Order: sequence, then structure tokens, then C-alpha cells
Amino acid sequence: MNIILLSGGSGKRLWPLSNDVRSKQFIKIFQKEDGEYESMVQRVYRQIRRVDSSAVVTIATSRAQVSAIHNQLGEEAFVSVEPCRRDTFPAIALASLYLKDVRNVEENEPVVVCPVDPYVDDSYFDTLKELSIQVEKDEANLVLMGIEPTYPSEKYGYIIPVDRKKISSVNTFKEKPDEKTAGEYISRGALWNGGVFACRLRYLLDKAHELIDFTDYADLFAKYDTLPKISFDYAVVEKESDIQVVRYDGEWKDLGTWNTLTEAMTEPVIGDAVLNDACENVSVINELNVPVVCMGLKDVVVSVSAEGVLVSDKEQSSYIKPYVDKIEQQIMFAEKSWGSFRVLDVEEEGMTIKVTLNPGHRMNYHSHLRRDEIWNVISGEGVVLVDGMEQNVKAGDVITMQAGCRHTVSAVTELKLIEVQLGKEISVHDKQKFELDN
Amino acid sequence: MNIILLSGGSGKRLWPLSNDVRSKQFIKIFQKEDGEYESMVQRVYRQIRRVDSSAVVTIATSRAQVSAIHNQLGEEAFVSVEPCRRDTFPAIALASLYLKDVRNVEENEPVVVCPVDPYVDDSYFDTLKELSIQVEKDEANLVLMGIEPTYPSEKYGYIIPVDRKKISSVNTFKEKPDEKTAGEYISRGALWNGGVFACRLRYLLDKAHELIDFTDYADLFAKYDTLPKISFDYAVVEKESDIQVVRYDGEWKDLGTWNTLTEAMTEPVIGDAVLNDACENVSVINELNVPVVCMGLKDVVVSVSAEGVLVSDKEQSSYIKPYVDKIEQQIMFAEKSWGSFRVLDVEEEGMTIKVTLNPGHRMNYHSHLRRDEIWNVISGEGVVLVDGMEQNVKAGDVITMQAGCRHTVSAVTELKLIEVQLGKEISVHDKQKFELDN
Repeated sequence: MNIILLSGGSGKRLWPLSNDVRSKQFIKIFQKEDGEYESMVQRVYRQIRRVDSSAVVTIATSRAQVSAIHNQLGEEAFVSVEPCRRDTFPAIALASLYLKDVRNVEENEPVVVCPVDPYVDDSYFDTLKELSIQVEKDEANLVLMGIEPTYPSEKYGYIIPVDRKKISSVNTFKEKPDEKTAGEYISRGALWNGGVFACRLRYLLDKAHELIDFTDYADLFAKYDTLPKISFDYAVVEKESDIQVVRYDGEWKDLGTWNTLTEAMTEPVIGDAVLNDACENVSVINELNVPVVCMGLKDVVVSVSAEGVLVSDKEQSSYIKPYVDKIEQQIMFAEKSWGSFRVLDVEEEGMTIKVTLNPGHRMNYHSHLRRDEIWNVISGEGVVLVDGMEQNVKAGDVITMQAGCRHTVSAVTELKLIEVQLGKEISVHDKQKFELDN
Repeated sequence: MNIILLSGGSGKRLWPLSNDVRSKQFIKIFQKEDGEYESMVQRVYRQIRRVDSSAVVTIATSRAQVSAIHNQLGEEAFVSVEPCRRDTFPAIALASLYLKDVRNVEENEPVVVCPVDPYVDDSYFDTLKELSIQVEKDEANLVLMGIEPTYPSEKYGYIIPVDRKKISSVNTFKEKPDEKTAGEYISRGALWNGGVFACRLRYLLDKAHELIDFTDYADLFAKYDTLPKISFDYAVVEKESDIQVVRYDGEWKDLGTWNTLTEAMTEPVIGDAVLNDACENVSVINELNVPVVCMGLKDVVVSVSAEGVLVSDKEQSSYIKPYVDKIEQQIMFAEKSWGSFRVLDVEEEGMTIKVTLNPGHRMNYHSHLRRDEIWNVISGEGVVLVDGMEQNVKAGDVITMQAGCRHTVSAVTELKLIEVQLGKEISVHDKQKFELDN
């Protein structure tokens, strides 16, 4: 099975755990059987592997998420990198060309496209497999998944099938209706449109060439920023007359707000927190290493990270966006392909950062124009390269780097550094990257 | 006027703002007219100065608080340092000897003793002056302040005066009664005992010699740890038959819980916080430099510091103690006589701290047995002394110090350092102090 997972953009609805660089799908919030926590991306990836261990998974996403994906899934996940955000039609077109030109997938092969962040049970992925098998029967150009509605929601688009069979032709689509209309649709067998579909790769390639003027993957990639923002539903699905739908009646949750996300938590507390007996329906997610104490609260979510603190009535939490949009908060934590960093302190002309490199990984060879840096190695072993000179380092070693000097560090064992940055205009954009000879 | 301010011990009722080293009286929570915030200690000290600019103020407190007092009040406040905690009678005895032997106060002078943490208006300090003047009339051995009760509280001891005049002889004392009995006392003109009294210094010295076997201040100081824990009320006041009381009917609040403390806040928010319109009676005190967002909360206090996060129903907040007593949290922030420090990061064999030295101040000359240290100067100018060698330092300079090496730094301008500590057993107790020749 070929699967394209669409990994959406940054969002602040789950602030302070999601931010401009960390999308909600990377928050580790779901407890596995072994007690460890995993993110939505990790959960979905693990579920796919369980249903089909040979599935070829490609994640279509922006440049900003590539590091986090490799950090969380390792290097084996294929990533179709979008140079900028252009909605789902260009993203799916680019991923299709990536499959054809970079991964050499046959045009005749079925491809399943689905979002990366549904909270579902394993039977969802069995249904994806059914979609893939159904495509091979060539009974329709597109095969959608239709989610059996559990209530007359006003939040979703509806698929109206011809009949109530497990697999049916699609009659028409209805955009988000009011509650009463939704009830009528459901009584006629309508299904929620969860944005999941399958088709032959050729179909996607044909649609791409039909609507965009380009030659191959490299060309499409190069002109990606000139493409209009348009959804796949609007550009393709709504104009296609030959569509089937496969019903799915397993668990399906859209965990887009703190209210819905906390419903999916198996325990009331993640991280260091104490709730007194007077607390009712309280959920705490604490990413800091200092405790949270809650007393006498009801229907409240408390979320604490290096970016800030949210304390909200659970229902009210869905109105968070305008409040956090106003916050001008510097990024305090990020996962990179080589490890992670956390901002410890911000001064007018200085910043202190904790850098953790995973064993065998290295950051880019780079320099800064407007800041000096000092590395204090606090644990592990590694090799520092400064202006072409290599040096083995261990805990206690200090490396000072003037502005303009090229530097990198690679970790032999897990390596932790305290990085002190000093300069008048410290910015993440002040960075020149260089190739390494070896 | 001579005033002894009794500065009580550490407490966790206002966690995470109070902790083992920061007592509630040092939390900067009261907004002044100029918009700046001051602590209870600073507020009381300023109020005393306003009523009597020549008042001689001595703060009786433990060693642990001396740095915070000098940090908040400067060097002009006298401090009678208790070598260990021994309740109010030994503390007042030691402070009396401190006044006589160290400050050379005449035995005939009146002394007013009061707690450092009442939330009161300026008229309270006018009443202290009245107490001092009343002492000089020699109508009684002790002159107490009696606080006009506002409700039949079960929390306070009651003073039963002979009559309802502004100044009256005391008939008797009653320990914390039930509500009904309290009501009866009040109907008979009873007053709350706020632990405030005045007398001639000689009276205190006599009582000290009567109950403790010692020669002078130095001797009492030396044997302080052998003294029994006993309150001044129990040891002296309840056994004294010749007492007057002066009525005080101004504002008087005991700000011992988050509930009472937030009532004294003039604004709902201190620090970086956003409350949506659905919040009612919500108070936020945020000492971190990342935002707190509150939505749809009612009657809730949110308190955030480097030590942790409290989210509590205001009434429930008075039951906090057993919950925070269980927390084994390392001290994350402290004010010292020379400035302050804040723990930024804790690792198994390392700790990163931000040190801020005030201009003209210096930390102790000291060494550590079990840890190396690295100083990264991030702003300001100063002079580092390492094993007797002096070096001027500025932003960008790095000083590495092996375990055993003696070191200190003094600030020319405000000086900020990132201190990286490395070792297997990092402890605040691993510190040897040395005298400096100059």
C-alpha cells in the first residue's frame, strides 16, 4: 500500500504545546501500552505499520516540519517537502510527482491519501487497505472513505451515497450544513467526509498536469510558490462524477481543540502534577520539570510548556485562537532532525539555549554574522569542528566562537551543550550554512 | 521610635511564590503608586519611614533571610540574626540584647515589637507610635495593640480589656475560641491579639535574664541553639498582670493564604497574563517571562514561578500545605545580599544557573569540593578573582574553575553570568568560604 499522509500546518489551537514550529501532530500526548508517550504522527505511523508492515508511507509537509518528522519517525519515512504552503491540491500533486520521479512508483499503483492527525483505531487502517484494493477493481476513478456520523455535526462536509451498502457510488457532496439539515442527510445514509481517498497514481498525475503547467517533479517543485492555494476537494473531488465511497464505522476523532484532545487522554495527568480530591474532570499536561498543583477545579484543562501556561474551562478552550494569536512569543522549544533545543534564558543582548544532539547526529556546518557563541559541554562525547579544525569534546569543555566563524558539532554519545549566544541582533535568520567536504 | 520587626520563617502556604528560602514577606505583590511592585517587608518598612522617618528598625530573623532583607531594603536596615529558629521569646530576647550591646540603645528607651507581615494602612504605624509614647508614661509594664475585630473569627487570640476606652488596662487573654464564644467576647469589647506590643528595653532585658542563663549578646548568640522553643505570649505576656492595650480600628489583614493575598491585589494580574471575558474573580501572579492564558475560570488563583504552577479555587487554596509539603523541589530562585540567582536547567551531573550581581556587590570568596564551574559573562563589567589572581571581565568572557579552586566575582556595573556547574554530587552545602585580605 502507498500512503500519502498530509501533515498540516502550524496551529495555535493547542497552545502552549503547539506553536509556529511545532504542529499539534508532534505533541507526545498518547500513552502506549509500554507507558511511553507518542505523538499523533507516531501513533498513525505505528498503526499503519501494524496493519501493513510493507506500506510505503510518504509524508507531504512543509520544510518547517521535516526535522520534527525525522526526529519522531527516524530516517525511513519518506518526506515530500513543500517549499511553501499551498493547500491540499498542490501538496497532493507534488507528492504524486515525488512518488513517480523520486521513488519510482508505477503510475498504475493505487495511492491512499489521508490526513496525518485522525485519532482512530486500527480498523481505520484496514479500511484504507480496502480503499486501495477497491481502486484496483477500476469501478471508479476515486474511492473515498466515508465516516459513519455519530451526531448531526455542523463542523463536517457530508458525502451523500447512492445507497447504504458498505461500498456505494457517490451521489453528491454537501458542505457544512446546519444541525437540522445534517440530521436529514444522516437519515438518508450520509457520511462525514474526512478527507481520505484512494486512486491510481496515474489519476493524480493526470489531474496535476491538467491544472498546472509543468514538466516533472523538479520543475513543479521549482514553481511551487507560484501555484494558487486550492483544495483537492474543490479542484478535483467536487468536479469528478465517477466516485465510490467505502463506509467506516470505527472510532474517529478530530482532536483539534484541548476539549477533544483531553477526551482522548487515558490518564488525567501527563507530567509532574498533583490534583486534590476536590478536582473534577481536570486534565493536566505539564512539559516542564517543575510541579503543577491543582485544587478544587472543575472541567478545566491546564497545559504548561516552555512557551507558556494555559488554564481553561474545557469548553471555552475551543475559543483560544484570538488570544494566543496576540502573543508575540519567541519559540522556546523545537525538535530538529539531529535532536532538540530549548531556550533557557533571554536577555537584551544574549540568549542561553540547551542543545541536545542524538548519538551519531550532527547539526549543519554554519556561521552567524551578528553573534558570538560559547558552547559549554555538559554531558556526553562528541566532535566539534570550528573553521575546519576538529576537536574531541566531553563534559566540562568550552568552545568559544566569534561571529563569522564556521562551526558544527557531532554527537558520539548523546551530547548536551549549554549554548550562550551574544550579540545585539540575535535572530534565527542570522545563519549561513556550508557544505562539509567529508 | 525603636521597632523590632519579627520576620517569620519559611512557609509553603503561598507556594510556588514562597519556598524554603523565600518567605511570603519577600514576594513582590503590592503595587505602589509608581506602578512598581513591593513585598510585605518593603511595604511595612516604607510605611514605618513615612510615619517616623527617624525610626530605628531592627529585623529579627534567621540567617536564611538576611540576604533577601539586604537585597530588598538595602544595607541600612539592622538585622538581628537568629542562628536557628527558636520561636518568639528567644528571638525577642536576642534582638533586645542586639539593641543594647551592638546598637547601644539605652535601656530606658521604649521598643515596639511587631510582625513584619501585616497588611495595614498607615494609621497602624501611628498606633505603634502611640504605643511607644504610652510606654514612656510608665502606666504599665507592657502596652499591647488590640485590633478591633471585624467578625467573630476562630483564628485569633482575644484580648479582654477592662473597658472600651482607646487605652485600657487588660483584664485577661483568651485563646482561639469557637465562633459563638468569639461573638460573646466581641460584645464585651474584646480585641484581636495581633502580637504587637511595646515596653521599655529594660523590661525585655530583665525577662531575658530571668528566664535564660547568659551574660551578654555574644553569649546568648552562642548558646541560642540550646534554648527551648517558646513564644513571647506564653513566656511573658500571659504571666504579666500589669498590661495596657491601645485599640486599633484601621485596616488589618493577615495575608497568609492565596485567598486573602489576592484580595489585597489592586489588579487581577501581576506579570504576563491574558484573561478572557468569561473569567470571573480570577487572580494571576506570573513571575515567568512567558504568558499565562486563562479562559472561562471562576474564583481561581493562578500562580506561576520558576518553582512550579498553582491553579486553585480561591477558597480551596488555604488547604495547600499537605500537597506542597510532598513536593521535593529544588530551590529554583533566590535573592542574595549581592543580587539573585535562578536555576535554568538541572541535569544528572550538571546544573545551569543565571547569576545577577548588583553594581558594587560581590559574592563570597569560596570553593567547591565536588564540582567544576564555568562562568559565561553575558552582560556588564566586573572583576573575577580566581586563586588570588584578578581579572577584569565583560560580556563574552569565559572563566573555568576546577573543583577546589577559590573564586569570587564583583560587579562594577550590573553583572550577569551563566554559571555551568558540573559534578556528580552538586549540592548547595558543598561550599567553603574564605576571607579576603582586602
